Amino acid sequence: MAIWLDQASEGFEEQFAAFLTTKREVSEDVNAVVRAIIDDVRARGDAALADYSKKFEGIDFATTPMRVTEAEIDAAVAAVPAEVLGALKVAATRIESHHRRQLPKDDIYEDDLGVGLGSRWTAIEAVGLYVPGGTASYPSSVLMNAVPAKVAGVERIVITVPTMGGSINPAVLAAARMAGVEEIYRIGGAQAIAALAYGTETIAPVYKITGPGNAYVAAAKRHVFGTVGIDMIAGPSEVLVIADKHNDPDWLAADLLAQAEHDEGAQSILITDDAEFGKAVDGAVERQLKRLSRAKTAAASWRDFGAIILVSDLKQAVPLANRIAAEHVELAVDHPHALLAGIRNAGAIFVGRHTPEVIGDYVGGSNHVLPTARSARFSSGLSVLDFVKRTSILRLGPEQLRALGPAAIALAEAEGLDAHARSVAIRLNLER
Amino acid sequence: MAIWLDQASEGFEEQFAAFLTTKREVSEDVNAVVRAIIDDVRARGDAALADYSKKFEGIDFATTPMRVTEAEIDAAVAAVPAEVLGALKVAATRIESHHRRQLPKDDIYEDDLGVGLGSRWTAIEAVGLYVPGGTASYPSSVLMNAVPAKVAGVERIVITVPTMGGSINPAVLAAARMAGVEEIYRIGGAQAIAALAYGTETIAPVYKITGPGNAYVAAAKRHVFGTVGIDMIAGPSEVLVIADKHNDPDWLAADLLAQAEHDEGAQSILITDDAEFGKAVDGAVERQLKRLSRAKTAAASWRDFGAIILVSDLKQAVPLANRIAAEHVELAVDHPHALLAGIRNAGAIFVGRHTPEVIGDYVGGSNHVLPTARSARFSSGLSVLDFVKRTSILRLGPEQLRALGPAAIALAEAEGLDAHARSVAIRLNLER
Repeated sequence: MAIWLDQASEGFEEQFAAFLTTKREVSEDVNAVVRAIIDDVRARGDAALADYSKKFEGIDFATTPMRVTEAEIDAAVAAVPAEVLGALKVAATRIESHHRRQLPKDDIYEDDLGVGLGSRWTAIEAVGLYVPGGTASYPSSVLMNAVPAKVAGVERIVITVPTMGGSINPAVLAAARMAGVEEIYRIGGAQAIAALAYGTETIAPVYKITGPGNAYVAAAKRHVFGTVGIDMIAGPSEVLVIADKHNDPDWLAADLLAQAEHDEGAQSILITDDAEFGKAVDGAVERQLKRLSRAKTAAASWRDFGAIILVSDLKQAVPLANRIAAEHVELAVDHPHALLAGIRNAGAIFVGRHTPEVIGDYVGGSNHVLPTARSARFSSGLSVLDFVKRTSILRLGPEQLRALGPAAIALAEAEGLDAHARSVAIRLNLER
Repeated sequence: MAIWLDQASEGFEEQFAAFLTTKREVSEDVNAVVRAIIDDVRARGDAALADYSKKFEGIDFATTPMRVTEAEIDAAVAAVPAEVLGALKVAATRIESHHRRQLPKDDIYEDDLGVGLGSRWTAIEAVGLYVPGGTASYPSSVLMNAVPAKVAGVERIVITVPTMGGSINPAVLAAARMAGVEEIYRIGGAQAIAALAYGTETIAPVYKITGPGNAYVAAAKRHVFGTVGIDMIAGPSEVLVIADKHNDPDWLAADLLAQAEHDEGAQSILITDDAEFGKAVDGAVERQLKRLSRAKTAAASWRDFGAIILVSDLKQAVPLANRIAAEHVELAVDHPHALLAGIRNAGAIFVGRHTPEVIGDYVGGSNHVLPTARSARFSSGLSVLDFVKRTSILRLGPEQLRALGPAAIALAEAEGLDAHARSVAIRLNLER
């Protein structure tokens, strides 16, 4: 049973504001532990990794190599059913062709004064991709991180993945090979982040780390931020479905549950203008819940964080959606364009009744790594831009320096920076 | 006296590697203090801000308003010399026209299957700009942060600036008005970051915070990252000058000192293929140092972190430059194009003998907020992209869902996510 909010009711604004600030994650203060692990990996390198992997995952690097071998990857590819390999191929191909369009173009030009200006993009040389272990070890996430990095031109992509006793989901290895990644280490947790950021005898350091992880991984990424780049700190997943009464309640119930089954902290929200329809969806959720293998997780998510919001007109959904700033928004209406135009804070928008969000998780072509926890107000999903960086280029000749120099000198002097002023003045033969 | 490194000497590789990892900042562990301040501002709002401003800056908000008034801004503009106002105008106009070219374009298209895909960019609604106080309160930095935000279409830009006793550098206020920013609060430190991130009675929260600050500000930004977006954590400035012997040593000495005068932790590096020329620059630095108002700072920076690196051929400078990954690189040679093409890790490159880096600080048009501390290996200077975010759009009809659905179902089942599979299968009338 999700909570119900009715925009027509007296206390709606307070209830909605409280709903927006609901915390959906248990925040563990793991900073001290994480800092100790990072310091240890920096000090002892491979030896520290071996100790942590033995302690936390029961692997002995004396018998199981830290680096996954070619032969293991071969065996994994052979073990994955053909149907799944085919589906991965569909996904990889579509992700690649969509992300190719995101490659930024250099912009080198000369302005009216003859000043040469430029923005030049180059790939980050080496990137680490953290892949969670266990049941959250998703081949689709490997593709969503590795393919954009490849498209960007990253030369070296490293995967780290924690394992229990050394074994890795074969589909993860198959996805890695499909994306062209062959440098894979069976390490995880804060120690994997430390190894990627600072390097060890075996693992050369990378310049940026992407990928989701547990509280230890998130804290470690925050800690090494600056030494290396990091992507976002991902929180539990969320979906906002905006729907009129002309939908099949079962379709939307399935969409709401597809988020809820991810995590007890996931959030599924329905906004509708029809109370009867809302009740029908709520009922369908309860019925479908019983048949899910992850029913316990989905039920907890729906019970604790699920919501049905009733509005008098679906236009009212737009400002609410912008405040919710959901990772995923579905527009399950016949004429979605007015809603689509108004929603600015969303990771991704799925348009029309035949675009379940799940298509975007796998085979739509767009990226499924998207901003959670209202961060769509200020950030974007993963893209090729996360794997490139821009260098500014400036070129003046003597004439341009004569034209612009005096203004630079005036500002340098106003800021009390003598050497700045002189660096220009000396080239213009001005006494400073 | 800077350190000398000679690539032809025996121990060069070790010396250079050690040089790269030299720490130039005293890292103060201010996390506990910062966390307490943030918690206090969240709990007590304006009252907490008033207490900290009284304690740290000697301002009483009972007599000096927290928000800078229109009349104060008018008075500041009137107090700034016409020459400086004119120079600010040159800078603002050039920054604006360069940054307009960075506005990303939406990309909405239909693929071969008829799937609608899109990347849509929208401005972040509200942004906070932290402006340091005292001698580091630079009007040029106000323009470099606020103008790109305006170009991006940010509706609300808020400036916070700490003051001693309440007074603000008039040129900072003039630059703010020129950039169209009128919401300015005289608060600073971790408490300003907390107020921007969480809001108080007076200050509505923003969605992203940019701008440099001291150790407390940097720690606070790291702390609120996730609740709001932040730009980079800026470190001390640096320049790498690559020069042949046909330069005037005094010109390059001035350029090296223009970085060194910023901060004792700043770093100025010369790479040259001529030892005599290197000595001449070193000598010119020592002579010019004596005449600087900030001689003490510049001398400490040059003594502790300055370096002259001798190579046998300037081509050798390229791989070294990519490892140094400097914020600023000058190419003081006649034919810079080979060097320019090879350097991929740099915040900005200044091409030719007549492009001192200082032009880029003020009036080049490109942004002077650039990646420091080797982070040009994985990040870019500030740009319009920092003030926008991208929403992915996906649209399928029944036909496209029939084409792509089975692959999505196969992957969902491989990942053990029943509700994901059902959300697609139910629309295709497949039994799940």
